[in-house]
Formats: sequence, C-alpha cells, structure tokens
Amino acid sequence: MAVLPSKSELQEAYARVSPHVHKTPVLTSRLLNEISGAQLYFKGENFQRMGAFKMRGAINAILNLTDDQRKNGVVTHSSGNFGQAVALAAQSLGVTAYIVMPENAPSVKKKAVASYNGQITECESTIEAREANAKSIEQQTGASFLHPSNDMDVILGNATAGVELLEAHPNLDIIITPVGGGGLLAGVALAAHYHGSGCVTMAGEPMQVDDAYRSLQTGTIQYNEKTTTIADGLRTHLGDINFPIIQQLVDSIIRVEEDEILAAMKLIWERLKIVVEPSSAVPFAAILKQPATFKDKKVGIIISGGNVDLAHLPF
Amino acid sequence: MAVLPSKSELQEAYARVSPHVHKTPVLTSRLLNEISGAQLYFKGENFQRMGAFKMRGAINAILNLTDDQRKNGVVTHSSGNFGQAVALAAQSLGVTAYIVMPENAPSVKKKAVASYNGQITECESTIEAREANAKSIEQQTGASFLHPSNDMDVILGNATAGVELLEAHPNLDIIITPVGGGGLLAGVALAAHYHGSGCVTMAGEPMQVDDAYRSLQTGTIQYNEKTTTIADGLRTHLGDINFPIIQQLVDSIIRVEEDEILAAMKLIWERLKIVVEPSSAVPFAAILKQPATFKDKKVGIIISGGNVDLAHLPF
Repeated sequence: MAVLPSKSELQEAYARVSPHVHKTPVLTSRLLNEISGAQLYFKGENFQRMGAFKMRGAINAILNLTDDQRKNGVVTHSSGNFGQAVALAAQSLGVTAYIVMPENAPSVKKKAVASYNGQITECESTIEAREANAKSIEQQTGASFLHPSNDMDVILGNATAGVELLEAHPNLDIIITPVGGGGLLAGVALAAHYHGSGCVTMAGEPMQVDDAYRSLQTGTIQYNEKTTTIADGLRTHLGDINFPIIQQLVDSIIRVEEDEILAAMKLIWERLKIVVEPSSAVPFAAILKQPATFKDKKVGIIISGGNVDLAHLPF
Repeated sequence: MAVLPSKSELQEAYARVSPHVHKTPVLTSRLLNEISGAQLYFKGENFQRMGAFKMRGAINAILNLTDDQRKNGVVTHSSGNFGQAVALAAQSLGVTAYIVMPENAPSVKKKAVASYNGQITECESTIEAREANAKSIEQQTGASFLHPSNDMDVILGNATAGVELLEAHPNLDIIITPVGGGGLLAGVALAAHYHGSGCVTMAGEPMQVDDAYRSLQTGTIQYNEKTTTIADGLRTHLGDINFPIIQQLVDSIIRVEEDEILAAMKLIWERLKIVVEPSSAVPFAAILKQPATFKDKKVGIIISGGNVDLAHLPF
C-alpha cells in the first residue's frame, strides 16, 4: 500500500494556496434536494479564478518550486482548463508559462491562455506531439513540467477545494466529484480522509470513458479506446501517483450515460442558475441515477468548472 | 410633488420580507471591472426564490393583507415571473393564488406556476382578456388583485433588494436597475434615497421599448407601440404609483440596442458564470455604452432574474 501524503502536508498546501484562490461559495437548492432525496451542497469551483478548480493545483505546484526553478518558468500541454490555470497562476506569481496546445484547440481557449500571458506553442493534436513539444521546451528553457493530474502538488492543491467545503459543512456523509485524470478525485479523497467525520468519497464517471471505474475493478490503470463523451474534461485516464490514493480512499465510482449527464447539467443551470461545464454535472447525474445510495445523506458535490462555449451549448 | 413612502415604511417592509426571501449574494469580477472601468457589484436576484426579485414584492404584498383578505386568496395576471412569484409567495404563506395566464404562455412558465400550486386560468393573450379574467375571479372569490409593478407594497418589497445591497456595500455611488413596469426601479430608488450615502439611482432600458425614458423626458407616462425587445421582462410601461417616485428619485435612464443587450448578457454568463435573463443584462449594457458616467465609480447592479428557457437561448 502506497504511503499517503500526511495531514500536515495537506494543511500546509491549504495555507499556501488559500491567499491565491477564491474561497468559492457553496450553493443549495430545496428543489434539487427534493428531486434527489438528499441534502446537496454544491461547491462552486466554476466561480474559481479562471473558472475551474484547476487553478488550485496549478498555484500549489508553482509555489512549491524553488526560486531557481521559478526563474526558468513552467511548461504544460493542455487543450483545456489546465493550460489556462497554469498560465494565470504563473502570471500571478511572476513566472513564465509555456503552454503547448493542439492546433485544433478552440480559439476561445487559446485566447484565454494568451490573455493570461501564456506563451503558446501549437502542435499536432496527438498526445505524442504534445508530449514531444513540451519535452523540447523543457530542455531548451529549463522550465519545470507540470502534469494536470498526476502530480502530488497538483493533487494537494486540488484537495483544498474539499478542505474548504468540509470547513463550511463538517458533517458531510459523502463527497462526490467527477473523475477524469484523477487529480481532483484523489485530492478531495485526501481532504475527506483527514478533515471529514466518517465522510466517504465517491465519483461520477461517464460510461463512455469509464477507465477509472475499470481501474478500480481490476486493480491496474485502464485506458479508454474512445473519448466520445460530452464531458470533455473527463476523457483522460488515471496516473501512477493518483491511482494508489484513489484505490485506498475512494469508496466507489458510479457510471452515467450521456443523456443522464445532459439532464443533470440542465437541472443545474435551470435551478441553481449557474453556468457549469458538462463534466461538472456528472456527479449530480450519478446521484440521480442511484438515489438509494444518497437518500437522506448530506452530500457535497464538487462543481469542477464553468468554462463552456456559449455558441455551442448542448441544450 | 407626490409624497414618498417614509424611511420607516421601507424599514418595516425590510423586516417583514427578510424572513421569507433569500439574502442573495453580491458578485464581483476583476475582468468585468477592467472592461467597464468601474467597480461593479452585481446583486444576484437570479438566486432569489423562484429565480427573480419579484418574489420580494409578492411576499410583501401578501403579508400586508388582513387575515380576512388572505382567506379569499390573491389574483394576478402574468405571462412571466410575477405569476410565479405570487404563486410561490402565496403557497409559502398558506394563501390561494389565482393566476391568469395567456393561453400562448410558454408551457415551462405554466408548469412553474402549477408546481407552486397556483390556480391557473388560461385566456386570450390580449391585455383586455387578461384584465377581464382577473376582474371576474376577483368578483367571484373575493381575492385581492396584485399588480406586478404599480402597487406600493410591491414597490416596497422590491426595494429590499436595494437595502440588502447597500447594507453589504454602503458606499455605492450609483445603483442601476433595468426598467420595465417600474416597480423595481422605484423600489431601489427609495432604498438608495434612504439607505445610500449620496447614491444615485439610474436605469437601463431597451431602445425598442423606451417608454420610461420618454416618460421622464415628457413628464407624463408614455407607452410602447412595439414590444419587440429580447428583454421580455421590460415590455411593459410605468404606472401612476411608481412614476412619481421615479420622477423624483431617478437621475437618468440610458437606452441600449438589442445587440448591446446580447453582448452584455454573454459577458455576464461567460465571466460571472451565472444564468441571467436578457432583462438582467440591460443595466450592464448601459454601463458599457456610456462608460464615462461610471468611470472609477462604485456601481451596484440589480441582476433581476434568471428564468430563461435553455432550449431557446439567444447565443
């Protein structure tokens, strides 16, 4: 069994990250409680800086670099929120950020990275091209590579969303997150482990990309053959740093179909009046799918982010 | 000059209404401050019960009825938020609500009223048919008629949104609201008058339905020939109870074009991550249109509501 990071490591991350991120609000809705049969506490990371929880991990990872490392900058490859998070976190801390983006990434995402002064390198959209380009920048500049989910500092940074939620609502029975690369799930599981009072961690995952579910079942990291889910933040797979944490601390993963994700997303928009990404609706979809598990429980839900293209909404 | 309701009447309304409504959050955004050149404080009445500020006026009006009046119920005609507000407020207070709705009202609005146990009467979509049906119900049941905007109790109830905003941010230089029927604008102007510190009240209005602007210019209540604006909550006109308050207390009304409303709405959705009605974007559109007026000022903006049909978004 792998050694978990300690409670004091988590608390140090919390103290380190908090001055640089928003303490996001926790939303409730009588109607969504009635519909689900549970007491739901939505942690609104869509209101986080740059619109997603990933700001937390990026901030923590950069703060943990030495002064010399910071001088050389940071590099990552991303088609989504982590590129924006690294760019904004680096800008806030006076560090240069090199962001490798696939040439077919939405222009709105490239513009966001550029608006945070991220240095963009475009490449082919294959994972090989992305990794090769990042590696090349790392070697040329001495920049530190940051992985979006399989990095202990990123995991501990993400965990602070769970710590905040449990500070506000210490008696949660369950916390449920979406799972894609595993960095949020592992972090929140650590938060529940150290700061919860018998609080169980669960995840929702799209059936179309159920690699994490299969990884837990088989005990080895599994991959996805297709990545066709609407929940575009969840198409990736677990890594060797977050998987052992997930194995030890996560109770179960509930898989949901695409139409269930869409229906849950619509309910969140209509009833909570907030803009959330499809990925953020996956845990709520899981609750609606398996209500007996959550009945009369106090359930925290991490709303992972709110960066959507309004011109291409799925409704 | 008409006599304004007193400060103590406003404070009584605040004490009366507060236990029955949400204290809605005030949102800020560094980016929207940069774009506008002002310090903006968005009062999120989209998070209010039933999704709009109109809950406040409906609650105050029903609470001000005598016990005998309450036994006979309340009646209104509405194709929009006020019908829902009266239905939910009445349900919360154990009062019967009769809601006259045009037969072509969106089914989503009829369902919402029905879900709050409102007794729906459908009628032709003319104003004459709506008024005749409401009158008939009033005579048959003894129910008290509630007007959505031209009623002093409704105005004082709406004013509580402004009081809450000024309690949280006492040094606002300006508060700006949308103006349709005038009930929100008159109420918030009273709040700024009694609770602000030199706080000026302004409004944004669609150019397509600029009756309130013309009413202020001419000194008499004006009407709209067309009601073609996307801001469907603002198609109505002022009334003889709210107009004198607006005349005395409102500094000016800024008119905006349809594309300006849409651009402002999109910025609010994208950057604040909240779901708001087109009407709610009109004040922010006014600020973007006339930035010199607001430069470096602390500006409160009432986000009036968030009830939109996600299947028919204008983006």
